[in-house]
This record gives sequence, C-alpha cells and structure tokens, in this order.
Amino acid sequence: MPLSPSRRNFISTGVGTSVGLTTGWLVGQNVNLSPINWKMVSFLKENAQKFILYKAPQMICDRVREMTQGGFNIEIDKNDNQKIDTQDILKNVSNGNIQCGYSGIYYNDERYKVLFFGCAIPFGLTPQEQTAWLLYKKNPDDVLTFIQQIYSTKLNLNVIPFPAAATGGQMGGWFNREVNTVTDFKGIKMRIPGLGGEVLQKYFEVTLDKELPGGAIPIDQIADELKQDNINAAEWVGPYDDFQLGLHNVAKYYYYPGWWEPSTTFDILVNRNAWEKLPKEYQRIFQTACLETYTKLLAEYDTKNSEKLQELRRLEKIGKIRLVRFSNEILQVAQKKTDELLTLYSSNATFKEVYDEWSSFKIKIRDWSNLNKI
Amino acid sequence: MPLSPSRRNFISTGVGTSVGLTTGWLVGQNVNLSPINWKMVSFLKENAQKFILYKAPQMICDRVREMTQGGFNIEIDKNDNQKIDTQDILKNVSNGNIQCGYSGIYYNDERYKVLFFGCAIPFGLTPQEQTAWLLYKKNPDDVLTFIQQIYSTKLNLNVIPFPAAATGGQMGGWFNREVNTVTDFKGIKMRIPGLGGEVLQKYFEVTLDKELPGGAIPIDQIADELKQDNINAAEWVGPYDDFQLGLHNVAKYYYYPGWWEPSTTFDILVNRNAWEKLPKEYQRIFQTACLETYTKLLAEYDTKNSEKLQELRRLEKIGKIRLVRFSNEILQVAQKKTDELLTLYSSNATFKEVYDEWSSFKIKIRDWSNLNKI
Repeated sequence: MPLSPSRRNFISTGVGTSVGLTTGWLVGQNVNLSPINWKMVSFLKENAQKFILYKAPQMICDRVREMTQGGFNIEIDKNDNQKIDTQDILKNVSNGNIQCGYSGIYYNDERYKVLFFGCAIPFGLTPQEQTAWLLYKKNPDDVLTFIQQIYSTKLNLNVIPFPAAATGGQMGGWFNREVNTVTDFKGIKMRIPGLGGEVLQKYFEVTLDKELPGGAIPIDQIADELKQDNINAAEWVGPYDDFQLGLHNVAKYYYYPGWWEPSTTFDILVNRNAWEKLPKEYQRIFQTACLETYTKLLAEYDTKNSEKLQELRRLEKIGKIRLVRFSNEILQVAQKKTDELLTLYSSNATFKEVYDEWSSFKIKIRDWSNLNKI
Repeated sequence: MPLSPSRRNFISTGVGTSVGLTTGWLVGQNVNLSPINWKMVSFLKENAQKFILYKAPQMICDRVREMTQGGFNIEIDKNDNQKIDTQDILKNVSNGNIQCGYSGIYYNDERYKVLFFGCAIPFGLTPQEQTAWLLYKKNPDDVLTFIQQIYSTKLNLNVIPFPAAATGGQMGGWFNREVNTVTDFKGIKMRIPGLGGEVLQKYFEVTLDKELPGGAIPIDQIADELKQDNINAAEWVGPYDDFQLGLHNVAKYYYYPGWWEPSTTFDILVNRNAWEKLPKEYQRIFQTACLETYTKLLAEYDTKNSEKLQELRRLEKIGKIRLVRFSNEILQVAQKKTDELLTLYSSNATFKEVYDEWSSFKIKIRDWSNLNKI
C-alpha cells in the first residue's frame, strides 16, 4: 500500500534549500546553509528491534548526522500502524513519496525478481563473494555498480540501492520433525520467504506460510505458530537472531546449512532525484556510512553467531535440541531445482542478462575462493 | 630510521587551530574555521603503484577531503629518498613526528610481534573472519577494539590503528623448482617476510632474502632476482598483484594456498594526540573512510584475482606455468611448526594474552564458518 499523502512533500521541503552547500568549503566557512532533512522507512518495525539487522538504519542515520554535524538529518519513520511491505518501499522511494527506505528484496511482482541477485540467491555467493559482487562494475569507470544500474536501466526505477547490511551465512531453520529426504518435506507448512521458499513450494511440496489462511506470519508470532504446530518449520536468520526469537524453545531440529540464503544482503534504497540534489560531500558521507554499516553488521553477525553456536552445542549435549546437516540428497536436489527455477525466470530478458553476468562472476570467484582455501 | 626533523611540527601547526569546529553545527553555519592539515607516510613507495594495495592511502585522503569539503586535508609524503620501514612508521607515528602512516605489521622487535595478530598469522583467520576479529571488542561498550587497545595498554604506543586495506587470501608464491615435501625446501632462498618467513627459516631451513648479502629485496627487483636464480622462490600477494610484478614470466610453479597469509590486513596508524584534537565529526569521517576502503579493496582483490586466475589457467594449458597445491605433508608440518612458533613467542605475557584471546575467537568463529558452509 502507498504511504500516507502527508509524506509526499518531504523531498521538496527537505532538499530544496540545500543548494548553497555545493558551493563548497571556502577557507573553512560554510555560510547560510539550512540542514537537509530526509525521512527513511524501514521494512523492519519495532517488533524486530532485538535483531542485529534492525540496527542498520539507525546506525546510518546517526553516522550521517555526526559526520555532517547535523547538516544532513535522516529521520526514521517509526509509524507502526502501517504495514509497509518491501515492494511498497521500492515503489514509494521510486516515485519520490519518501527519500529512502531500508529494505530486503522480498518482492512479489515477477519483474522485480531479478533484483534478488542483489540480495540472496539459493546456493549463491558466500558473504565475501557477495560483497565483491555488490561492488562489481562492468566498466571500472562506471559511477554505479552493475546491480545499481539494473534498477534504472532495466526496470525504470528511479532508485539507487546502497548495500547497508549483511547477515552472513544463514541457517536452514528450525523444524519440529526430522527431514532426512526430499520426500519428508511433502506437506510441511513452513515460514520462509524469497526464492528459497519458491524452490520448496514448487519442487518440495512445502506449503508456505503466506499461502495459509492467515497469510504471512508476523515476526513476533513465528515462535507461537511453530509451538502450536500451525507451521512445522521456520527459518529466520541464524543462531543469534533465532535465539532472540526463541525458536530453540519451540522446535527440536536446527538444520544447516541455509542453502536458500548463503549471504543475504539488505539495502538503503534512495530516490534518485533526492540523491542528485544532495551536495556531493553528503553523497559521499551517505555512501560511506552505508558500506561501513554493512561491514560492521556482517562482522557482528559472525561474532555473535559464533558465540551462540557454542550455546547451541551445549543445548545439544543436554538433549534439548539437535543440530543436523541437511542430507546430501536434499542438498543435491535443492541445487538442481534452484537451477531450474532460475532458468524458468530467465524467460524474462533482464533476468537472463543478470543471471548470466552473475553466473560468470560466480564461476570465476568460486574458483578463486576454493583455490586459496586452506 | 627516524623521519627528518622538519616534519616534527605538523601536529602543532596542523591541529592547533581546529578547536572552533567542535562547537558544532548551528543551523548550518560553521564560521572561522581553518582547515586541518595532516601528513601521512606510507610503507609503499612509488615503485608499488601498480598494486591494488597501494591505493588505500590516496582513497582515504580523497574521501576525507571530499567529505569535509577540504576541511581536513591529509597529504601523502611522496619523498622516496628515504627508506622508511614499517617499524619506523610505527615509532614516528607514536612519538608524534607525523600524524599518521599506512603500514603492514612487518616488524623486527620481538615485543612488537604480538601486533601480527592484527595483520597476518599463518593458518589464521579467513578474510571474513579476520574482519570480525579486527572489529572485535571484549566489552561491547569499549570505544576501542581489542586489537586497538593492545597498542596503548600493553606496548605503550601512542597509536590507534584503523584497518584500511585487505588483500584477501594470498597465494603460496612462485618457485622455480618443485617442492613436493618439506625436505625440498632445504636450502631454498626465498623472498618472504613476516611470521610465515620465520616458520620457513626456523623449521624448513629456508634462507630468507633479508639474510642474503644484499638484504631484503626491493619490490622492483624481486622478478629479476628470481629470474637470475639469486633467489629460488618469491611470494608477493596473489594472482593480480603478482602479474603486475611479472613473476609468471620468471618462475614456473605457482603454489597455493598461501598458508602464511590467509587474510593479510593493513592499517592506517594514527597518533593518539593528533586524533584526540580532531573534531568528533572528522574522527567519524576518518574512521568511516578507512573501513570503507578496507571493504572496497578486499572486494577489488577478490574480483581481480578471480579474473587473473582464469588467465593463469590458460597459461597452464599452454604449458607456460603450473598451478600446484602444496602437499598435505607440507601443509601439516607447516601448521604444526606455526603452532610451535606462536607457543615460543608466548613466553612474552602480552603475546600469550593476545594469542589466547585470538585462539578462542578462532575456534568459535571457525566452528560457525564450517557449519554454514554449503
């Protein structure tokens, strides 16, 4: 759904008076400048504040405010009354209703599915490879990255995405029953979004939570729904965030690896007109704050997940949970079916173009990753 | 050797007039401010400009200048007449002769060996794990990271290091003869610095270039010395940088993995007094520019190394070179001897303290890395 009409004039009021700043530093004096004010929406609301991922927007806003001495203020819209899904955020940033939005690529329109290559592809890149991919330019002189260009040149979106958060490798999720073979997935009801969910739905006969009568399950109800066996499995992020959700208290089997999301990344989407009106130094500050936050959150995930994993191993010792690797059969079929799904979407020319570029990038960088592995 | 006396007054002239800035943004007006001017030395001189690693200082200086609209200028000292080794840079930044320096941890004094934990330990962390380690704080509320604290609290250095560049995993290097067993290393003369070099010297009976009559080989002479068989092997970085050096033209065997440097990282060392005199927003800008550069260079290394690896595979096909994995025997002995070397250095209490913290961190994060690997 669209944002409320009252938000529609932020760009004009916020950015219009900023032109003076571009005249630059003159022996250290900036005179007659008004602060620039932006609003940001987030796909994560207050009920997500215990997760590491939730922090990115505030970190970026704080950093930008500090670095500009309050000259560039981005305020996060904390209005929880509206449910704003990720595709709404994309559209509202694109049409200028709001200057920027924190979002993951969980879209419904088929034509936006290509954007998953900037977020999470099953059996895709490792986090380190993903970072290289997100910053990859076809021509080193390009201002925009390959992925950033797709938004405007192929999808007519008036949006520039900046990588702003990364979870690192995820887990396969919590199951209240064992899944030893592909057949064991049949009939399971599972909370899982994205292309991984599509693979499970199309080829493993899993019912996704969004198909259930109540629709997609809100974050704070996932544990309850699993406990009551309304769903049989749920994937969220990894050891740290999953603990925050309490999933270890309501299901016994914690599967790995999270083949559907080996390196999920999240962006701040920025309206291109608002961006172009920013003084150059504020553009740099914003970009730099985003990439710094991306790197810091990935590091925090790795550190905190590794600590929680130790706790999981203790819980396994006392028999409370079980940590189980997906069988080779499951992983092999999942890989094959992922390829089928991506080939299916390649009937769309843009999807094919990006898939081809990504595949070629993946082959080369995986060769390198494997070679220098000790 | 120390820097020239004429550089000793940079801090007083550069930072003294900056106090006005800390009074902050007042409806967008900063009045009566003078630019802050710093100098930076780099351990890499002009003869290194074709390597990716060389770029970090200029990227950071450019970024800081842009983000502050020229309010904070850091100039790189390009005086190539002086050979400034990494330990000189450490000392000169610590005693305030210069505000900052770009450096790798290639030190000679035993008491500084502990700082290798912030740079490169043989069989150490992967690049992704290393990033988490560099940002790791014992207490989340600490201002400084664990590694940053070691400099002042344990070594009495008036220095704060900021991670600013990463090569990613390195290669084992170019050899003009085959090394199938540990015995084959005996008598080899090799260009290799750091703890990896110490392992080879102490336990593999390798002669290091720095022990040769002419001393450590300057960068631009490595290929020639290898060609003339004055040395039999040389490790530099990885596919891209090694190509720049032309090593593929003078040696046949390219060994991997680079067990001595699985994730080498480089810092900008900053004098603490100069740092504390910076306005807070300039501190943030500097920090953020460093971490952004770190992430970008690692991504660039991964992408360009993966492209050069394809070229290496073509050269292998036509018989020009051979890509060879170190034998399991070599890797196992090297791992064991690395542990011995680190235990040896642990007779120093500070080294032991950091080694213990690092080892515990490594066990946990490696468990997590392995678990979520697909």
